[in-house]
Amino acid sequence: MTAVQLTAQQRLRHLITLDQLPVDIIQRLFARADALREGWRAGQRSWDTLHGHTVVNLFFEPSTRTRTSFDLAAQRMGADVINFDIANSSTVKGEILIDTLHTLEAMNCDGFVVRHKENGTAEFLARHVRTHAVVINAGDGNNAHPTQGLLDAYTLRSHRPDFANLCVTICGDVLHSRVARSDIHVLRALGIGELRICAPANLLPPTHELPGCRLMDDFDDAVTGADAVIMLRLQKERMTAAHVPSEQAYFARYGLDARRLRLAHPECLVMHPGPINREVEIASAVADGAQSRILQQVSNGVFIRMAVLAELLSGT
Amino acid sequence: MTAVQLTAQQRLRHLITLDQLPVDIIQRLFARADALREGWRAGQRSWDTLHGHTVVNLFFEPSTRTRTSFDLAAQRMGADVINFDIANSSTVKGEILIDTLHTLEAMNCDGFVVRHKENGTAEFLARHVRTHAVVINAGDGNNAHPTQGLLDAYTLRSHRPDFANLCVTICGDVLHSRVARSDIHVLRALGIGELRICAPANLLPPTHELPGCRLMDDFDDAVTGADAVIMLRLQKERMTAAHVPSEQAYFARYGLDARRLRLAHPECLVMHPGPINREVEIASAVADGAQSRILQQVSNGVFIRMAVLAELLSGT
Amino acid sequence: MTAVQLTAQQRLRHLITLDQLPVDIIQRLFARADALREGWRAGQRSWDTLHGHTVVNLFFEPSTRTRTSFDLAAQRMGADVINFDIANSSTVKGEILIDTLHTLEAMNCDGFVVRHKENGTAEFLARHVRTHAVVINAGDGNNAHPTQGLLDAYTLRSHRPDFANLCVTICGDVLHSRVARSDIHVLRALGIGELRICAPANLLPPTHELPGCRLMDDFDDAVTGADAVIMLRLQKERMTAAHVPSEQAYFARYGLDARRLRLAHPECLVMHPGPINREVEIASAVADGAQSRILQQVSNGVFIRMAVLAELLSGT
Repeated sequence: MTAVQLTAQQRLRHLITLDQLPVDIIQRLFARADALREGWRAGQRSWDTLHGHTVVNLFFEPSTRTRTSFDLAAQRMGADVINFDIANSSTVKGEILIDTLHTLEAMNCDGFVVRHKENGTAEFLARHVRTHAVVINAGDGNNAHPTQGLLDAYTLRSHRPDFANLCVTICGDVLHSRVARSDIHVLRALGIGELRICAPANLLPPTHELPGCRLMDDFDDAVTGADAVIMLRLQKERMTAAHVPSEQAYFARYGLDARRLRLAHPECLVMHPGPINREVEIASAVADGAQSRILQQVSNGVFIRMAVLAELLSGT
Repeated sequence: MTAVQLTAQQRLRHLITLDQLPVDIIQRLFARADALREGWRAGQRSWDTLHGHTVVNLFFEPSTRTRTSFDLAAQRMGADVINFDIANSSTVKGEILIDTLHTLEAMNCDGFVVRHKENGTAEFLARHVRTHAVVINAGDGNNAHPTQGLLDAYTLRSHRPDFANLCVTICGDVLHSRVARSDIHVLRALGIGELRICAPANLLPPTHELPGCRLMDDFDDAVTGADAVIMLRLQKERMTAAHVPSEQAYFARYGLDARRLRLAHPECLVMHPGPINREVEIASAVADGAQSRILQQVSNGVFIRMAVLAELLSGT
Repeated sequence: MTAVQLTAQQRLRHLITLDQLPVDIIQRLFARADALREGWRAGQRSWDTLHGHTVVNLFFEPSTRTRTSFDLAAQRMGADVINFDIANSSTVKGEILIDTLHTLEAMNCDGFVVRHKENGTAEFLARHVRTHAVVINAGDGNNAHPTQGLLDAYTLRSHRPDFANLCVTICGDVLHSRVARSDIHVLRALGIGELRICAPANLLPPTHELPGCRLMDDFDDAVTGADAVIMLRLQKERMTAAHVPSEQAYFARYGLDARRLRLAHPECLVMHPGPINREVEIASAVADGAQSRILQQVSNGVFIRMAVLAELLSGT
């Protein structure tokens, strides 16, 4: 884990990665999300927790869904929101990135939600913060996507709180997936019973990057008895690298369909970070079926992001 | 009309089209707009009617004016607003469109303002709504633009409430115009005395699409005695289809200039949905003249959209 | 100065240029900025001064920094904000520009922050305003950038209030710089002791455009004894015009480095409107050094823009 994200008192200073994030911080964020979600269910629609704060969405990679989720989270917590559109995002790095950060800090912006295709960008910015401003990693390369990992664990916990007895399977393009990495970190931190990884050989990272995971070649085997299956999105341009000749061939070997799902625990949850490729990595019947928690992940994502913003910015 | 837009109790559930929209709903929206406009004139600048609601502008076709009008309407009614930018809008259809809707519903967004170049998109989305969320059609292909129709009728009614004795002329590219279709629906519903349509033969839809309208070839004849003339915007790329060799030739036959306007009723109103093509479909002297209500249409448009959002989302 | 920006009572009606702007108006804006900045330091984060007003950012030239500064200023003063994205900005002029203005005025927008690559655009719009709406020039061609000029003078004044005894040097591409022009106007209005201009011969405007300035060829001479140096950004595409073969050659002759800065007054302030080109017009060690006020300029920029918006829109 990066040292930059914790204070000397082990409080959260930035949110860069879930790697080695202390469990009590994770639980604290979940408790915040619980309270916010309960408030929403009871009819509350806005909070003034972040009144006077300004959250900047610094997205150097397009992502309407995640940006909208953070935008809503910040608005509903009472923050001002700036969507900082970056023209030639590929060239924004190093000094230019730092100057942009310091310029926005000088404007008294204090929450930076950062997405960038290069690993380490959020941490790089966090190391250069000069004020009380906080950096939240909204996805850096294939490294980390901590709020997605948190919302995945949070969604799982809502249905199956006893993690020690759970078996979770992650399947797909693990190599390029920051979601998989953050999921592995948070699920292991929370003491998941068994964590299975299934991926085409060419889309699997080196074993040392998957500590505590059980690698399984055959997806049927990997699904059997699982309590939850987290499917990953296949970027179509990576199908060649996977040595899979077609979407149909990929789906046959690594797609989650109704037959495979029947191999799992009868109450097995189906999850996916979205957006889904129907009939590529997941069958529509499964994505839209009774066991799917895909939309609940989206819903929880807003509360998790509200919790993270509040934890980092509110000072309470 | 589409059945999806009314509840079993004949209340407005979504706003997709003005085709067969019950007159009492139209009048109810006008009464709301009246109250809001009067409040504004008395100095009120914001309402909390939509506090806690989130309105998403889902524009798959660029339209700064209409989007801004909805954005202002939603902000002034107290809603949170998300402008959801769609990257490759032409490919957003079918399942991807539904997944986008369900994702945003899962984030507790509940007002969807939709513009798309394909007919039926707003209705398609309305049929797939799973929550209490509402869909407002901000223009679909050449099918409907209901808030434009409402604001046109509302503007006309502000000056000439006695519709039964009015003669209104719509002139221009009727074939491709969702504005013309929505105007025809609302003006007929409100009992307009005479509704004249004038268009180049190749820009005229089949007669059965223009029920209750009087088709007139010659624009001089069509203007004569009219109480209002609604000019339509000519997309320059459609001039060829109209077999008009030039903007000058189009203007000569179908442009509204001062001479033609003198053929109309002395207090004839001049209307246009904007943006206008000066000296193509309308002379500057007429567009900016004393009889023009073009900017009043724009102004009323915000109040009509505030009324529609309140009617659909506020529950009162 | 343009007559359009003052009322008959010599109150500010629009902010188009600093050319001949009365000193009492400048001082009044500075006093407002002082009060806002003090309020912020005391913990105030939002004002309701502009409640019920709608500020539109009409940027026909991309500028994320200035747009964000105005966006934050308007939000923090309580205004609604619309970012009006202009598609084919190069073609937006003349009648189309006026129609856009009148359309937005009809929607009851009343603050227009305008940037355009053509000189005179903001003034052109100000002359066509029909309501109580105000126009703020956020940069027009190489003509004026009044809020930048104000924030530069305000920053200088925070450290060295006795302008009569100050010597200020402006260096770089003066020819294309609206910042330089606005700086010259405001510094002369405030009675600056000595104002030096240093630029490559081909990037220097005609002498009559630089009244009251001392033109100096050699940058070493121009820096010597200066109390502040304002460096201008070099657009890389203009290096050829400057007959400088490379960035290195430009930096050697016109770049501000530590050696040159030592020629100045020991407390000489270093300023730059940003974004900076490191090692082109300014050395990193100087830009990030103790004498740099670059980020303070950014910070003051928000307060100056809050002050300008309040002065123009609040009526008090």
